[in-house]
Amino acid sequence: MKTAIYPGSFDPITIGHLDIIRRSARIFDKVVIAILVNTRKIPCFDNEKRKEMIEKCISDLDNVEVVIKSGLTIDVAKEYDAKVLIRGIRAVADYEYELQQATANMTLANDIETLFMVAKPEYSFLSSSVVKEMAYYHADLSKVLPKEIIDEVQDKFK
Amino acid sequence: MKTAIYPGSFDPITIGHLDIIRRSARIFDKVVIAILVNTRKIPCFDNEKRKEMIEKCISDLDNVEVVIKSGLTIDVAKEYDAKVLIRGIRAVADYEYELQQATANMTLANDIETLFMVAKPEYSFLSSSVVKEMAYYHADLSKVLPKEIIDEVQDKFK
Amino acid sequence: MKTAIYPGSFDPITIGHLDIIRRSARIFDKVVIAILVNTRKIPCFDNEKRKEMIEKCISDLDNVEVVIKSGLTIDVAKEYDAKVLIRGIRAVADYEYELQQATANMTLANDIETLFMVAKPEYSFLSSSVVKEMAYYHADLSKVLPKEIIDEVQDKFK
Amino acid sequence: MKTAIYPGSFDPITIGHLDIIRRSARIFDKVVIAILVNTRKIPCFDNEKRKEMIEKCISDLDNVEVVIKSGLTIDVAKEYDAKVLIRGIRAVADYEYELQQATANMTLANDIETLFMVAKPEYSFLSSSVVKEMAYYHADLSKVLPKEIIDEVQDKFK
Amino acid sequence: MKTAIYPGSFDPITIGHLDIIRRSARIFDKVVIAILVNTRKIPCFDNEKRKEMIEKCISDLDNVEVVIKSGLTIDVAKEYDAKVLIRGIRAVADYEYELQQATANMTLANDIETLFMVAKPEYSFLSSSVVKEMAYYHADLSKVLPKEIIDEVQDKFK
Amino acid sequence: MKTAIYPGSFDPITIGHLDIIRRSARIFDKVVIAILVNTRKIPCFDNEKRKEMIEKCISDLDNVEVVIKSGLTIDVAKEYDAKVLIRGIRAVADYEYELQQATANMTLANDIETLFMVAKPEYSFLSSSVVKEMAYYHADLSKVLPKEIIDEVQDKFK
Repeated sequence: MKTAIYPGSFDPITIGHLDIIRRSARIFDKVVIAILVNTRKIPCFDNEKRKEMIEKCISDLDNVEVVIKSGLTIDVAKEYDAKVLIRGIRAVADYEYELQQATANMTLANDIETLFMVAKPEYSFLSSSVVKEMAYYHADLSKVLPKEIIDEVQDKFK
Repeated sequence: MKTAIYPGSFDPITIGHLDIIRRSARIFDKVVIAILVNTRKIPCFDNEKRKEMIEKCISDLDNVEVVIKSGLTIDVAKEYDAKVLIRGIRAVADYEYELQQATANMTLANDIETLFMVAKPEYSFLSSSVVKEMAYYHADLSKVLPKEIIDEVQDKFK
Repeated sequence: MKTAIYPGSFDPITIGHLDIIRRSARIFDKVVIAILVNTRKIPCFDNEKRKEMIEKCISDLDNVEVVIKSGLTIDVAKEYDAKVLIRGIRAVADYEYELQQATANMTLANDIETLFMVAKPEYSFLSSSVVKEMAYYHADLSKVLPKEIIDEVQDKFK
Repeated sequence: MKTAIYPGSFDPITIGHLDIIRRSARIFDKVVIAILVNTRKIPCFDNEKRKEMIEKCISDLDNVEVVIKSGLTIDVAKEYDAKVLIRGIRAVADYEYELQQATANMTLANDIETLFMVAKPEYSFLSSSVVKEMAYYHADLSKVLPKEIIDEVQDKFK
Repeated sequence: MKTAIYPGSFDPITIGHLDIIRRSARIFDKVVIAILVNTRKIPCFDNEKRKEMIEKCISDLDNVEVVIKSGLTIDVAKEYDAKVLIRGIRAVADYEYELQQATANMTLANDIETLFMVAKPEYSFLSSSVVKEMAYYHADLSKVLPKEIIDEVQDKFK
Repeated sequence: MKTAIYPGSFDPITIGHLDIIRRSARIFDKVVIAILVNTRKIPCFDNEKRKEMIEKCISDLDNVEVVIKSGLTIDVAKEYDAKVLIRGIRAVADYEYELQQATANMTLANDIETLFMVAKPEYSFLSSSVVKEMAYYHADLSKVLPKEIIDEVQDKFK
């Protein structure tokens, strides 16, 4: 069984993230979505809320699991026996950072492969930050968030 | 009448910004310089002072107006019936961020066009941050600031 | 009257080019599409055919004209009294080349402004070369070419 | 069974290519190495020779197959029922080109995923062109070619 | 005598930094490592400790000196009569920032040359931040830090 | 004595090249300009003519020598006992290619350092190709070529 891990902060999950998850779930036997806790940054939504929002969006996928973890990504991968680490990429700025992370991880654990999946062009501008900026100014979120969580995010920024 | 909006924080306006403004004013019937208020970041110069400094530098241009606004850039553009959003770009790092913003704005309001104008090569390193760093260490500001505001900026960092 | 020039080889025009043309025609009073003749490269479609194909696609736009020209872009711009040169950009590779050209043109003729317009995300992979590659292998061209010229391009590669 | 396709010209295969192949063979059930015939470019080694050289290097891998194909990559993928297309990437220039190709392929066949695998840092400068340049000037090839084919490549450039 | 300055925060020095220092010391008569004090950012290790750690790693190099300085880099260069400013670069993100800084410095002091030295590929992911992240999670530091300071850094994060 | 090599095709030398040469000559004891013969590409100016044109421009510099060489750059560097290889860089596209070359050279000869020097912003668009394009269309060359060779280049394209 091939397990892939998809790490991130998902604060909150966007339709871009969801697209990467659905595409990964078609390729790998199991996909573990790892919400990585960053103790030095206060998230907009707390860990449990972020997990709950992701789970709402993937209820139809039975080979995907959501977990909350702290520590280095490669240690989380080892814990779930994932040999593949999925990262969505959008553009060069993303890519440079991701290339650096992937090279660091390759050096630290050479049996875990980072695989990059390209974001759909129509999601190429999307990030949790963009979504929060839009929500803050009460813009229409229907093109950027999964429909399952739009109300929740809007409520947060009321 | 074609109106273009040129948004930014202008904290403070540099000769690079001023060059983009003068060049835009030759192409469009009206240019609205929008000082965007970012409530989550404390500026070095307050809103009114930044407006005043810009106005000092453009007193000879009669088709340019300076306004202080909060909210999404595209909403400000709509308020002034601007169909064009001007952004100066210098290099790739800029460009990636700008490309993402432009794509986001295209998705949110497809009747407003972002147009990029290339910074003059001699201003390719310039930003408000670089200027503030230089002012902090009492470097010569005559190559980076419009002459109208040099004294004011120097005083601030005394 | 503000005239913009949109130079290129258009061998053949793609839906990406057409999108830039339509968006430019909304902003400027007149748009001159300049097919630049490159004597050192044999085009797939000859000059007149390329002009004819573009004209088929823009028959509903009355402020757009197509011309065949050789020489430096800025000299063509001067001939048509265009103060603006439009370039569509897609990604960083594009951008670097375009930035270099724009800077060269700025040095040669500082009264002509290059303005970059961002390609729609769904056209971000599109170029005449990609289209010809697809046509060569008889792939479906309906997502990449204006419908007015699909048959013609397909015939060419039969 | 998950099949991945790894397309390229492999003219000749480098240790960088071989590393991507070995890493892919650990993740996917089957890997099809597709030598894509480009009728418009004369290769240094002919199709059969390139196939033979790759096979020499992968004789210990029993889930990898080498095929010679012409046409669009996605059509080759379909023929082998491969849902994954592997691409090695080294740096930004690579990435931009690859991103464009991946986006084109996504539009043409949305059930085939392009996955990028990062080259090991020590192979980040390697390409078939660099190897041929080095062979042309009789440089030491032991750090850039699999040992199985060094003699053959050296002989070619004698 | 040609003196080069190598500025940075070195919080802490990595094997990547050390490699740049050793390579610079072979090219220039004297290398001054300038720990630049940034009053607006709290370092992990204090100035004296950072100096001490660097000195431990370079005890065998007699043409290298470590100094603690505040102010603009070019002013520090002038103080030590250094005509060359060394910067290590790893990838595009680095490069863009470095290019901007180098251009700014060129404008402010045109007799001081910035020279970029490429990081060894195996150090291309390395930075003080990556090291601190690894130390925070108690990862093995032997591939990222000079052996002389590993214990000290580990102790800090216990 | 520190010798630096500055390799290129210089077909023809531009004011951008000349600026890099002059700046290098201030830093290193000797600078060897190596015109690299590429047997697979027909130059516009022959080897001897290119050498002659460079020599005309540097007659006031007594620590600079021009040589015509074929082979790998690092072999030429060894021949002249140059421990430094100078490369001018302008932008990201340049940089990626240069980074790849520098890494290849580092692997092949780790005692020769590639040092990058940033082009002056006003020369950031300049290349021999741009100059030839301009000369072909009889544009003014006074901002792009050293005055010593303008006539010669103009004559070539008459």
